[in-house]
Amino acid sequence: MSPPGRSEGESLSAQREGSPDSVPGWLDEVAFDERGLVPVIAQDAVTARVLMVAWANREALAETLASGRAVYWSRSRARLWRKGEESGHVQQVREIRLDCDGDVVLYAVEQQGGIACHTGRASCFFRRLQDGRWQTIDPVLEDPELVYRK
Amino acid sequence: MSPPGRSEGESLSAQREGSPDSVPGWLDEVAFDERGLVPVIAQDAVTARVLMVAWANREALAETLASGRAVYWSRSRARLWRKGEESGHVQQVREIRLDCDGDVVLYAVEQQGGIACHTGRASCFFRRLQDGRWQTIDPVLEDPELVYRK
Repeated sequence: MSPPGRSEGESLSAQREGSPDSVPGWLDEVAFDERGLVPVIAQDAVTARVLMVAWANREALAETLASGRAVYWSRSRARLWRKGEESGHVQQVREIRLDCDGDVVLYAVEQQGGIACHTGRASCFFRRLQDGRWQTIDPVLEDPELVYRK
Repeated sequence: MSPPGRSEGESLSAQREGSPDSVPGWLDEVAFDERGLVPVIAQDAVTARVLMVAWANREALAETLASGRAVYWSRSRARLWRKGEESGHVQQVREIRLDCDGDVVLYAVEQQGGIACHTGRASCFFRRLQDGRWQTIDPVLEDPELVYRK
């Protein structure tokens, strides 16, 4: 996605006004892997930071489009993961993109609470390679113990 | 990564001034999959667009750090892929990030030629879901036939 993304005020709902019949069509163009999953990049629609990468199956993508909230597939729990269901850190999805090979999806999101990572940081990509090691350079914005106690 | 990234003038070389002994250390913290690969997101350090996703093995990451140019592992060719080796669309790597689980890497790059995608577009994420289908919304900047004839 381009950082400015869609013009402001234009919502994802505008993107789902096609006929319901067409829904399976777009899902069929996604190249899910042998597990039926596709990696999804969540990028902040405002700051343009890459926030996280997770997985989605057909159901997760369909629900994301229908609800306008980012839904993933949790491999560890083997169930749909509606981002923010425990932390409150919901992601409102402004647009959904697909790459040239059809095997990576990108959600442009508005990150509620400004925290995408389970460590309480804005982004999961908080470590930068420097002087031969990974250095944590982003602050914890909220104690994750408190986040998940909500 | 944060879009402004490292301060201008600060190069990746500053990030590799650690002792050479420490190089295996950072690679050991990357959670490669059973094939020895990790997905890599290339994000434009200037525009903050997500440009592409490819794979890297240990050697690709090590060479990226050493050379300052984005190197991937081509699964189809089963060899190192020095981005731009055919197209000329080299990616200068400004920083390398790792996510919280250690299983996704992010290169913040300066994309030479402004084209990352083999279709001749700026980004591989040139399709947006709209009206129930994937719509191509980014222009072809250069005929790919010409790009690969260089």
